[in-house]
Amino acid sequence: MASSKKLPDDLVTHVAQVLNLRVLPGQRLTLALSGGLDSIVLLDLLVRLQQTLRFRLSAVHVNHQLSPHARNWADFCTTLCQAYAIPLDVAVVQVDCLKGDSLEEAARTARHAALAKSTTDFIVLAHHLDDQAETFLLQLLRGCGVDGARAMAEQNGRLLRPFLKIPRSRLERYASQRGLSWVEDESNLDTRFDRNFLRHRALPVLAERFPAYRETFLRASRNFSESALLLEELAHHDAVGAIHEKKLSVRSLAHLSLPRAKNLLRYFLKQHGITAPSAARLEDMLHQLLSAKTDAQIKVPLESFELRRFLDHAWIIPALPQPNPGLCYEWRGENKLELGELGGTLIFWPAHGQGISRTRLEQAPVTLRLRQGGERLQPDCKRPGRSLKNLFQEAGIPPWIRQTRPLLFSGENLAAGLGIGIDCSFQARPDESGIMLEWKAADLLD
Amino acid sequence: MASSKKLPDDLVTHVAQVLNLRVLPGQRLTLALSGGLDSIVLLDLLVRLQQTLRFRLSAVHVNHQLSPHARNWADFCTTLCQAYAIPLDVAVVQVDCLKGDSLEEAARTARHAALAKSTTDFIVLAHHLDDQAETFLLQLLRGCGVDGARAMAEQNGRLLRPFLKIPRSRLERYASQRGLSWVEDESNLDTRFDRNFLRHRALPVLAERFPAYRETFLRASRNFSESALLLEELAHHDAVGAIHEKKLSVRSLAHLSLPRAKNLLRYFLKQHGITAPSAARLEDMLHQLLSAKTDAQIKVPLESFELRRFLDHAWIIPALPQPNPGLCYEWRGENKLELGELGGTLIFWPAHGQGISRTRLEQAPVTLRLRQGGERLQPDCKRPGRSLKNLFQEAGIPPWIRQTRPLLFSGENLAAGLGIGIDCSFQARPDESGIMLEWKAADLLD
Repeated sequence: MASSKKLPDDLVTHVAQVLNLRVLPGQRLTLALSGGLDSIVLLDLLVRLQQTLRFRLSAVHVNHQLSPHARNWADFCTTLCQAYAIPLDVAVVQVDCLKGDSLEEAARTARHAALAKSTTDFIVLAHHLDDQAETFLLQLLRGCGVDGARAMAEQNGRLLRPFLKIPRSRLERYASQRGLSWVEDESNLDTRFDRNFLRHRALPVLAERFPAYRETFLRASRNFSESALLLEELAHHDAVGAIHEKKLSVRSLAHLSLPRAKNLLRYFLKQHGITAPSAARLEDMLHQLLSAKTDAQIKVPLESFELRRFLDHAWIIPALPQPNPGLCYEWRGENKLELGELGGTLIFWPAHGQGISRTRLEQAPVTLRLRQGGERLQPDCKRPGRSLKNLFQEAGIPPWIRQTRPLLFSGENLAAGLGIGIDCSFQARPDESGIMLEWKAADLLD
Repeated sequence: MASSKKLPDDLVTHVAQVLNLRVLPGQRLTLALSGGLDSIVLLDLLVRLQQTLRFRLSAVHVNHQLSPHARNWADFCTTLCQAYAIPLDVAVVQVDCLKGDSLEEAARTARHAALAKSTTDFIVLAHHLDDQAETFLLQLLRGCGVDGARAMAEQNGRLLRPFLKIPRSRLERYASQRGLSWVEDESNLDTRFDRNFLRHRALPVLAERFPAYRETFLRASRNFSESALLLEELAHHDAVGAIHEKKLSVRSLAHLSLPRAKNLLRYFLKQHGITAPSAARLEDMLHQLLSAKTDAQIKVPLESFELRRFLDHAWIIPALPQPNPGLCYEWRGENKLELGELGGTLIFWPAHGQGISRTRLEQAPVTLRLRQGGERLQPDCKRPGRSLKNLFQEAGIPPWIRQTRPLLFSGENLAAGLGIGIDCSFQARPDESGIMLEWKAADLLD
């Protein structure tokens, strides 16, 4: 209900209230200071409040090296902070990008990375109501869902945005009342940037008829934030019994309504750090998962991962290049072999009366190779030899792992397969010394 | 995934596809025909398709009587339908409203009411992609949530919108290719209407930079529709065990997270036909429900209803005016008395050996009055008399009903209270004839 309260006329009081709720005496606040109007006003206010609220104030200026004036802005901030007697850190970052919006995005990423390094208690940002409205509309113009239409928060972890409910015009008034000066980032006027186009061209027209658009957009955005939260609760609920050991049951997915299944799939991807794919993309994945025959190989690329299916489960695995099928490592009695290309290490444990017979292995060169297809193994001396495919299936090893698990050969004879057994003719007798194999994957996913 | 498919260049093919999926041969289609560009184009297309798809086409023109030209539009439609040999029904409606947007709203309500009367299989509307984008933005400018940001549907029950994915420019091209003529509603140019302001002033500016805004808005809107659906599923799930006999358990509500409780409350209100109140309003209701002491009287007005709480339950009851507390009906032996002001009928059943003693009632004039406070009754001859408040509480009768239930007096003596008992001194003896009282509420809520 705080949102429906009227903002105090006095900007100092408003900022003090926002901080008071969150900041304890003695805590450190670091202001992200660009040198532009918004952050200059916030600096002035924080300086005025630091004694009363007893926080320790510092500032960081991120130099993106994008403007020919970047050096001047850094100097301006340095001089200003000296005048205020506030410690300033200037972080120079490299923005790797070429044009338009993606530049803005890249600059933000670089800026956030620089800010993230700080060990301060709170990073204070000067985002205001106009920024929020612009972001909201930009997201809608990308066809977002509730996740993308979420509002920025006054507090998000250690990020604080005391101006979030304050329109830019209020900050301008404050700056002029206090006689503050600031630097103009000339790129803010460049309407080739989508955000600036909205700010200088589209939104002023909208404001003629809808002067409260900033507030109503914020309200809508907050509603969407709440819906996003609820959808997460729903997914969390649906995940019980459907997601186990980071694998998603396709059968459980099939029991849900289509929108609900998409919601659960989105949640599952998020658990693996894959952020919101488009609705169309999700639907496509879901379609592939649900319609594939159990054995079908599904392989949907997702950023640096892949979505795969094996039996009832959807897996998210790192997208590794397929190893060279002709790969061949020779074993010369080492305790372990690091098989980088296969993403793991093979360990050879000494044993007695079990494992692969050492005597048998000494009769020919031992090599580790990958499956070519058609190999057979006889792990059970009482039953005939069986195809590897058959043995892999029985052991529940997903197809994409089968191509990356080393097989141990003695000369041209297949002696053992990881996880599927030792050929009868190579098994150590009760009185013989043997060798046991163990595979340690570099990642924990297989 | 249909949404991601490219629209066929040929408008006829597109409309045929939309209809083909939904309309069976022989079914009746009624076009809502305003005489403007959109519906004229749709009329021309439907006429061309009626033979192939074998539906029966008719049209209805709603005359809102708002424009001085309204009569001409009706004539234009009549002439046109005669030329096409399509039956036309002209419905004249009265729009009760004074200015601006609310006029648009009122006209729509009147139009929909007129269309709803039709017994046709499908009502076909000419809403297109631009309409959808305008509605979407208008809703966001009102600070809506996912419910308000829902997209119109190509089909919603018997409403069909074959143009929903088609931009207006495509319809203009078709009209010019086919040499169609139509009437211009001069109010469409009046930018005092919010929608027209968006259409003629704001959206053209937006389109300079974001030419695909209609499509991305539709995509966002579809995402919100889906979220709204999911939130309904969640509420439906939370309602199990929380909503019984149209009453909502406050204890169950208190166990949910705040957003989830709001979602359930919204669902509960919707069940009673109360459509989406604002987020702030919902929060306020929730706050009142959760923070009130069990006995506190909560009374939140909601359109023509009131939200009330009694013990653990939230009730939605019709907002009836409180009856005059001085109300007094005389009973002269009728079988029933209609007590309109109390919203029900009192029935007097003859009985033997139970109920109120007829003999005792004959000793003084019998009146029905309302509780004034302080009355006492002794329903159990073995226990002392008790206050009505006490007896009402014990009987689980909510406070707002207590003030509207008639009490039966013999002279100045309270003989019986509905649902709470008969005073010992008025109870019929086993050998006496008696009278039983029954209350029939006009509505089913109490």
